[in-house]
Amino acid sequence: MKEDRQTTGWAARDPLAHLSPYTFTLRKTGAQDVLIKVICCGICHTDYHQIKNDLGTSNYPMVPGHEVVGDVVEIGSDVTKFKVGDTVGVGLLVGSCNTCLPCEAGLEQYCNKKIWCYNDVYTDGQPTQGGFSGSMVVHQKFVVKIPDGMSPEQAAPLLCAGVTIYSPLCHFGLKTSGLRGGIVGLGGVGHMGVLIGKALGHHVTVISSTDKKRDEAMIVLGADDYLISSDKDKIRSLVDSFDYIIDTVPVSHNLDEYLCMLNFDGKLILLGAVNAPLEFFSPLLITGRKMITGTVIGSMKETEEVLEFCKEKKVKSTIEVVKMEYINTAMERLATNDVRYRFVVDVAGSKFQD
Amino acid sequence: MKEDRQTTGWAARDPLAHLSPYTFTLRKTGAQDVLIKVICCGICHTDYHQIKNDLGTSNYPMVPGHEVVGDVVEIGSDVTKFKVGDTVGVGLLVGSCNTCLPCEAGLEQYCNKKIWCYNDVYTDGQPTQGGFSGSMVVHQKFVVKIPDGMSPEQAAPLLCAGVTIYSPLCHFGLKTSGLRGGIVGLGGVGHMGVLIGKALGHHVTVISSTDKKRDEAMIVLGADDYLISSDKDKIRSLVDSFDYIIDTVPVSHNLDEYLCMLNFDGKLILLGAVNAPLEFFSPLLITGRKMITGTVIGSMKETEEVLEFCKEKKVKSTIEVVKMEYINTAMERLATNDVRYRFVVDVAGSKFQD
Repeated sequence: MKEDRQTTGWAARDPLAHLSPYTFTLRKTGAQDVLIKVICCGICHTDYHQIKNDLGTSNYPMVPGHEVVGDVVEIGSDVTKFKVGDTVGVGLLVGSCNTCLPCEAGLEQYCNKKIWCYNDVYTDGQPTQGGFSGSMVVHQKFVVKIPDGMSPEQAAPLLCAGVTIYSPLCHFGLKTSGLRGGIVGLGGVGHMGVLIGKALGHHVTVISSTDKKRDEAMIVLGADDYLISSDKDKIRSLVDSFDYIIDTVPVSHNLDEYLCMLNFDGKLILLGAVNAPLEFFSPLLITGRKMITGTVIGSMKETEEVLEFCKEKKVKSTIEVVKMEYINTAMERLATNDVRYRFVVDVAGSKFQD
Repeated sequence: MKEDRQTTGWAARDPLAHLSPYTFTLRKTGAQDVLIKVICCGICHTDYHQIKNDLGTSNYPMVPGHEVVGDVVEIGSDVTKFKVGDTVGVGLLVGSCNTCLPCEAGLEQYCNKKIWCYNDVYTDGQPTQGGFSGSMVVHQKFVVKIPDGMSPEQAAPLLCAGVTIYSPLCHFGLKTSGLRGGIVGLGGVGHMGVLIGKALGHHVTVISSTDKKRDEAMIVLGADDYLISSDKDKIRSLVDSFDYIIDTVPVSHNLDEYLCMLNFDGKLILLGAVNAPLEFFSPLLITGRKMITGTVIGSMKETEEVLEFCKEKKVKSTIEVVKMEYINTAMERLATNDVRYRFVVDVAGSKFQD
């Protein structure tokens, strides 16, 4: 066991959500722990909601950030997966119970006692703090290797947005080439859906409430089609045509048109948790053995897989790299969807020091 | 090709739904057809709704009945599956397109051009008529062999109610011994759910709006537990406990409590099509990778399987055998759920003659 030490992150102090430097103690590097010097960290909509206390569960000071890439600078005595100098990633989770049904199945993200990488309490009783920080100490189980040759900035968005799309495609048998998929909502997660769907050889339609993102979807990201969700004629022409629709929109909306557009055995996969009831008309489901389901991020194994998949298929997400000093502006722009499609904070290149 | 011939069934003439003898022409026995002398036929709630025109799609005269067991008395020149003298069954379907995705997968019940065994039009342009009739002519693809040693009266309810329960258990990987299942609604389909669930070695809980059927569920049918759907304390104690819940209730109800009671990866399977929107709270689905789905009857292969399964496992459904002359009373009793759990009409033993 090594000595305590301090690191500096950028923390929100209250729901006003202004982030500023905050120095805190990192726990000792335990036998199973890895000490990581952070290189960069993606910004996800969840970070914005957490610092604003939009879910009503925020504790302050809070250092957000859960798409973390860094270098291993120290390992515990029982660490076998990593060595000093490895470039590694950390996502939303840093702990789980190891004994429940999901944990035994290697699906820690469904453990009822999972520990979030920030705004949670670790097994030592201390608050967890995220990746907008000089360093992190993380149990090796929740650390993944970044493949050789992948840039840290490209790897970061895969650790949450990427695996969130990849996990349901894996689990529900939707990796076969030639499938037809719909992606509802073109934010950070949706844009990864287009890229990963295309890399799998799917025909991908972006479904959006406005026409604003048509060129970006089809020209920049390579989507095959674009559907405005109020275009009833086009919806009629797409009845029974999708093998899956991944819905990333976290606000209430009727699901019937999506169910209609699904093919026999088609799957409507909800990724955006909506804090209001959703409605559907059951005959649309039953007569085609369709399903409504949803998933939470992905497992550590799926995180490793999506990194390798994106390296192999040369999937490049569209990112805007910013310095930590810009983070409050970045958060404001995120709130108005003014980013194509993911901010990644250059933590190591920013002014605050570890 | 043989000559036309006539048969007598009991038909409704209008939405008043009084059934009385009706003589009509059977088509010639085509090369792929089987002529069946009906022995008996189950009564399903769907029959009641169809004769009353509750779905607004009824055509008269209508001979209902879609759980038909009879003896083969003539076969077409290309019939290979059956011989004269075989005891066979016919369910809800008598035709499909043979070319669509579901047909190619052997799942004719999801074909958009499927032909119902009554209240539909056959490929020859003539109306189809059901099993409350002296004889039927059916394409061999939609005929199944009744296993040796199984009584026709026991076989009849398996051809709709039985396979309707068996199909989702098969398709969604729910035949493993030791699973925990819930059955919502204890009618004809629900009671088969208890029997088949128990025969699979499941722990089966009946979920009902009242306490009225507790003894029947637990003592007569062998259910392991009984939950009144308004019992909030018991619902709380059952959170995360069911691998599946099969919901047979065809009226609108909130799904959230069922979703709460499902375990990780649990499946809510809707069998009763509801003509009004259903609501659910999406985080309940997403945080446990749960799913809402639904199925329609079962395939011909699953129909053969459920017959063999019930023979092997000695599953005996609870039936009340009645004569055709009693059918109007039986329909009235069905409308008030006054039957435990399936009427079967002794067609061959009734007074009308073929």
